[in-house]
Amino acid sequence: MKLVTFVPRLEPQATATVGVVLDGDTVVNLQAGRQMIAGSSSPFFVDMLAFLDAGEAAREAAQQVIDFVCTQRPPEITYSLCDVQLLSPVPQPRSLRDCLVFEKHLIQATRSVISWYLPPLAKLDTWLEKLRGRSLFSPPKFWYDSPVYYKGNPFSVVGADAKVHWPAYTQKLDYELEIGIFIGKKGRNITEGAARSYIAGYTIFNDFSARDIQIQEMKCRLGPAKGKDFDTGNAIGPYLITPDEVPQPYNLTMSAKVNGEKWSQGNSNSMHFTFEEIIAYISKDETLYPGEFIGSGTVGNGCGLELNRWLKRTDVVELEVESLGVLRNVIV
Amino acid sequence: MKLVTFVPRLEPQATATVGVVLDGDTVVNLQAGRQMIAGSSSPFFVDMLAFLDAGEAAREAAQQVIDFVCTQRPPEITYSLCDVQLLSPVPQPRSLRDCLVFEKHLIQATRSVISWYLPPLAKLDTWLEKLRGRSLFSPPKFWYDSPVYYKGNPFSVVGADAKVHWPAYTQKLDYELEIGIFIGKKGRNITEGAARSYIAGYTIFNDFSARDIQIQEMKCRLGPAKGKDFDTGNAIGPYLITPDEVPQPYNLTMSAKVNGEKWSQGNSNSMHFTFEEIIAYISKDETLYPGEFIGSGTVGNGCGLELNRWLKRTDVVELEVESLGVLRNVIV
Repeated sequence: MKLVTFVPRLEPQATATVGVVLDGDTVVNLQAGRQMIAGSSSPFFVDMLAFLDAGEAAREAAQQVIDFVCTQRPPEITYSLCDVQLLSPVPQPRSLRDCLVFEKHLIQATRSVISWYLPPLAKLDTWLEKLRGRSLFSPPKFWYDSPVYYKGNPFSVVGADAKVHWPAYTQKLDYELEIGIFIGKKGRNITEGAARSYIAGYTIFNDFSARDIQIQEMKCRLGPAKGKDFDTGNAIGPYLITPDEVPQPYNLTMSAKVNGEKWSQGNSNSMHFTFEEIIAYISKDETLYPGEFIGSGTVGNGCGLELNRWLKRTDVVELEVESLGVLRNVIV
Repeated sequence: MKLVTFVPRLEPQATATVGVVLDGDTVVNLQAGRQMIAGSSSPFFVDMLAFLDAGEAAREAAQQVIDFVCTQRPPEITYSLCDVQLLSPVPQPRSLRDCLVFEKHLIQATRSVISWYLPPLAKLDTWLEKLRGRSLFSPPKFWYDSPVYYKGNPFSVVGADAKVHWPAYTQKLDYELEIGIFIGKKGRNITEGAARSYIAGYTIFNDFSARDIQIQEMKCRLGPAKGKDFDTGNAIGPYLITPDEVPQPYNLTMSAKVNGEKWSQGNSNSMHFTFEEIIAYISKDETLYPGEFIGSGTVGNGCGLELNRWLKRTDVVELEVESLGVLRNVIV
């Protein structure tokens, strides 16, 4: 199931509603479908948080609407994808955690920062890494054992095609090519074996970052703050795709284009931890709730910092991930 | 105004409600008072988030109830403080940011960690700091210019007298003596001069920390994760005290007792940034909402890590801050 939150373009003042995409380009309004079938609305379809809170019952109710649409094809409750504005599938997640599970990104991003201050050291490290297979900037042992993360601001989430506003305080705005999941079930001390059933679905995440500020902040030992936190800085979407439609989440090709030119290319098979392992780590003595978001962190080569290429105002950034679609945003 | 969220001890199944404390030990149920005055309930008093969302109108409505109680003394809508269970004044804040604005804490905590691995270096630094007034572990220049912060988990918030559950994955649980504010008004790009009007009130914050894990995580450069994130790990309370009753927020004595013995003593006058400066920093290109919480960070000497003293199960931790009350919690 390819779930979306959308507003019809012809009714921009309408309340955003939960939909499902069929045949690649038809959006079904689930609440309107429910009305048509049952003569009354369903609390499951009020918004995506209500949908996720209701779990299996909501998915069953959605399937009934899908079956109805597939047989009856009622035009009143369907839209062409180009006639709707998509929001993030969960417009305001209950929380936003972002991990750092790609070793290559961590090493290359650190080396890029070092190259600003000590270019010979960065060059030496590139050479050393080739020679002995290990960088001076490889993370400590703890990183290889534990999927660390920071927490972002869920109020800053936007969806596909949203404008991302360049924060006035940064000179170096950057994109990050990531995948992410939404939690679909409340749980605590979840084992790795049970964790897959807590994944409501997969999506694409662009964690826009103010690199100059982030690097300064991280020297102060608390992780990123304003380097990641600004309105519209977290793009998530376009769809929330249920696990049955993503049979191989750890072998997805990922790419980023800027103004149509491919800057980044990677694959989720280089994740050092699976989302199942991440869920097990986070949920230790801590309750997870439906609608919480967890990002993978940036794939290797998945941001401008690693490539020393930088966004400018008016740039169009498109993240494409196999099976998950294209997340396109414009910098303004 | 000393605002609380409470449940009467004789009605433990009752929904938590918004109250105000009068004369030090009388809790007034604002919604019940409103019913008595107006014959109908008020949306302002549904919960503390609704109260804060309503801003000045809610405070005026509360003042009407207070005036009524002060003249009529109706026993039906008042409780003795010992007959109610206090929750955190905002049981689930819209977000939780915690800063690090006390230089002494930062230097001493770092030195404590270094002393685990290299005791002679920690000793040398103590001596050097006395000699030249600067520690080897003083933060970078950016820290002195910008109030950095990390974000905690607002689902983990508990109030005064709540049990704090020792996470199974840590050997070194610690307390942190802090003060904090709740935001009372939506805003963005708030100037330092205007920031005071965005403070709904002050309270005490105990940011319980799993030090062994936190230290390992912070080496991975993203700040604390499970070192701070576990159910019941953020105690906030007992009251939300409006700014008119805290005329000198930057001269409050602060202390921490463990099982009645004083471990920590400090003063908010050693904050390197004011909350007004912090609000100005956070709100750069980022919208703040009523009900968001911001902690000061730990005052110097305000945690066991700095003192090399450690909590154990069954310990009672009491944080006392002048004008703000006592926040007492039990480790279980």
